[in-house]
Order: sequence, then structure tokens, then C-alpha cells
Amino acid sequence: MTVESATRCRKPLAVALVSGGMDSCVCTAIAADNHDLALLHVSYGQRAESRELKAFRDIAAHYQVKQTLICSLDHLSKIGGSSLTDPRIPVEEANLQRNNIPSSYVPFRNAHFLAIATSWAEVLGAKTILIGAVAEDSSGYPDCRPEYYGIFNQLIRVGTRPETDLRILTPVIHMKKREIVKTGMRLAAPFHLTWSCYQTADLACGRCDSCALRLRGFREAGVKDPISYA
Amino acid sequence: MTVESATRCRKPLAVALVSGGMDSCVCTAIAADNHDLALLHVSYGQRAESRELKAFRDIAAHYQVKQTLICSLDHLSKIGGSSLTDPRIPVEEANLQRNNIPSSYVPFRNAHFLAIATSWAEVLGAKTILIGAVAEDSSGYPDCRPEYYGIFNQLIRVGTRPETDLRILTPVIHMKKREIVKTGMRLAAPFHLTWSCYQTADLACGRCDSCALRLRGFREAGVKDPISYA
Repeated sequence: MTVESATRCRKPLAVALVSGGMDSCVCTAIAADNHDLALLHVSYGQRAESRELKAFRDIAAHYQVKQTLICSLDHLSKIGGSSLTDPRIPVEEANLQRNNIPSSYVPFRNAHFLAIATSWAEVLGAKTILIGAVAEDSSGYPDCRPEYYGIFNQLIRVGTRPETDLRILTPVIHMKKREIVKTGMRLAAPFHLTWSCYQTADLACGRCDSCALRLRGFREAGVKDPISYA
Repeated sequence: MTVESATRCRKPLAVALVSGGMDSCVCTAIAADNHDLALLHVSYGQRAESRELKAFRDIAAHYQVKQTLICSLDHLSKIGGSSLTDPRIPVEEANLQRNNIPSSYVPFRNAHFLAIATSWAEVLGAKTILIGAVAEDSSGYPDCRPEYYGIFNQLIRVGTRPETDLRILTPVIHMKKREIVKTGMRLAAPFHLTWSCYQTADLACGRCDSCALRLRGFREAGVKDPISYA
């Protein structure tokens, strides 16, 4: 798709990063009303890679998105340094009171995702990139903080063509998980299609950080999580 | 290699991005004296991909570098938007007086490279990333300007572990090509192993921007370029 054809779309085009988890699903739901969507998914050797890709495809089909891009970053598992990409490092049991950065931190991961989103958005002529980063009610990854996205937007301004007008939006960054659940329910986000668990399995483990955050969010929102747990 | 083994090295460890061209070769030569080196090369579907990879391997062998990482970013050619990655867009003849951004600009390319370098450097415990960006005497890519690297260093500070102490250095960014040639000659940089041409061929074309900048640099330095031209 070229810049010319993008301008023929009825709504402005947004590139949304969709992992397949609940946060990016709700970002997609938020954007779906007012944007044409181009959905980006990145596999990077993470444990739940194939399950997350299925969730991505299901969400893209749900929103009838025609433009999708699926990328594979083999080097993030070659580089390792994370329990998500190195099978020798075990995934920790959930500890939502932890102060340090958990072993599931994938070094500088989100910059890889945003670089792809920016390149794609620049070629498509999109004006917006959406990412479901969550700051406070999260695992404490350094690349999920608002400050990080402010700096990345500066990088886009300086590092792209002068005529490119593109900005990252983080619509759920200040939300608690329970607010994300409530927002998603209001917008009929397809939570039943999402996958959050760090482990690969037929059923979510219910014990990793990501499951624990999700389950607490649904519980506090007073909503039943529609996916199944072991 | 872990953080522990990195600290056993005699010299500080630097990750250098090596395309196989003259600028990154001279950066490597500058760093080689005072650093242990880890060399990173990225293929991204650019026309001269296989020839550049050969140059990378030759330079790594020349400096007897043990730690190398070769990454492949297929999505940059899927995304396209550049004469380097889309065979339907012709490579322009050189025009060193051009004011606009040339068709060889690969949208937001260097952010992909720096994201990989940062992830790898963080896991290795390196303190420095070297990139051979050239600002003034160049093709005018937006992601080759000093401002861009200042912002990327902020991104690294905010987006990595609090204990990570890592910075991008751009040792040739303010040099003219002739100064890069002279610096390389003083440091015995293996220019005969490098490849700059945007086209794939046995001989460099001598006509693309990259060849034209290189040839002018050697000519102004009063040094014979050791590679062969068509």
C-alpha cells in the first residue's frame, strides 16, 4: 500500500502492535472505531510464540483487518538474557510486589517492535502507532514507562523523512488492569481470543506474572475471564 | 557470554555495527586498540547483502574478533519503500548536491540496527556501541545526524535495566570522507576488504551515491582506493 492509497481510506490509518494479549487487544478495540487498522505481530522466540500468533490471527480476523504484518526476530533468542527467550532460565512464579526487574524482561525488546512499526507506518503513510504498554500495574519493565514513549516519539521525529507525521500512542499506559478489562468490556473487545500466559500450553498456567496480573484485573473488575486456566 | 565473563576481559567490551563499508571499518579500527570487540552485522534484503556479509566476515577475521552476531531482518524488504530493498525502485545515479532524501533511504533503518546492538550489548555487559554514521558528507539520511544518536542514548538510558551503563558512540559522524580515509590509513584499516556499492556485482559500480562518496573521499585524501570498479 502506498501513501496515495492510504489517503483514499475513509478513516485515518493506524498501525497497532498486537501481541495477542489483553492490553494490545483493548488498544485495538479503542482504535477500531475511528481508524483503519494495520496490525503488526512480532515473534521473537518467546515461549508462547505459536499460541500468541494464533491469538493475533484471531483478533485480526475478528476486526476484519486486511493489512497485517507478521515478523520474526530470531536474534532476540540468540541474544537471550530473558526467561522468555532462553529455555535455561526458568519463568518465575508471580510476584506482584517485586521491586526489581523480573527475569522475563527481554533486553530492550520494545525498541525492536517500535522500529518495525515505525518503518511500516512510514511506508503506509499512517499517522499513529498504538502499543499496549502498561506502566504501573505491570511487571515493571523499563520499556513500558511513559517517559520511554516520549523519547521514542522524539526519535521518530528526528529519524524519519521531514514530511512524515507519525506518533506513538499508548492508550492504556496509565490504566490499572481492572480499567483495561472494563474498557475492553465496554468496547466488546474479544478477550476470549487473547492469550497472556508466558508459558506454552493448551491452558494458561495461572501462575506466571502475566497470568497473575490478568486474573487480578478481571477479579477486580468483577468480570469472569473467558479463557481457561490449568 | 555472560556479564561475568565479560568482566574478565582485559579491555572494555564494545559492540560495533559493521556493515562492511569503509565508515564502519574505520570505526572498528578506532576501537580496536582500546577495546575487545563484538561485531554485529545485519542483512535486511539490501541489494548487496551477500557481498556486504563477505566484507563483514573478512573484517572480523582481520581483527581476529571471536564474538560476532549476524542478523537477518526480512521484514525490512517486506516493508520496502527504498531502492535498496525493493527491486522495483531503481538505485539513483549519484547526485552529491541533492537536497532531498534519496530513494536509497530505508525507512527508520538504523533504529532496527541499534535496537539489536543495544539488546546484545546489555546482555554482554558492554559499555559502548559503535556505529559509523556520517552526517554532513553523506547521502542525507535523517537517521545519520548527531541529534538522532543523542536521543537514542536517552532511549537506552530509560529503556534498559537501571544498572546498565551503555552508550552509542559515533566516532566518524563529523568527519568528511577524506578524513575517514586518512584516519583509516593511519590505523591500517583494511580498506581492501570493504564494500560500499549499493548494487550487487563483482566490481563496484562507481556510479551510485555510495560509490561516488567513497571515490571522492579517496581522491581528496590523495589515496588510491584498493577495491576495483567497473
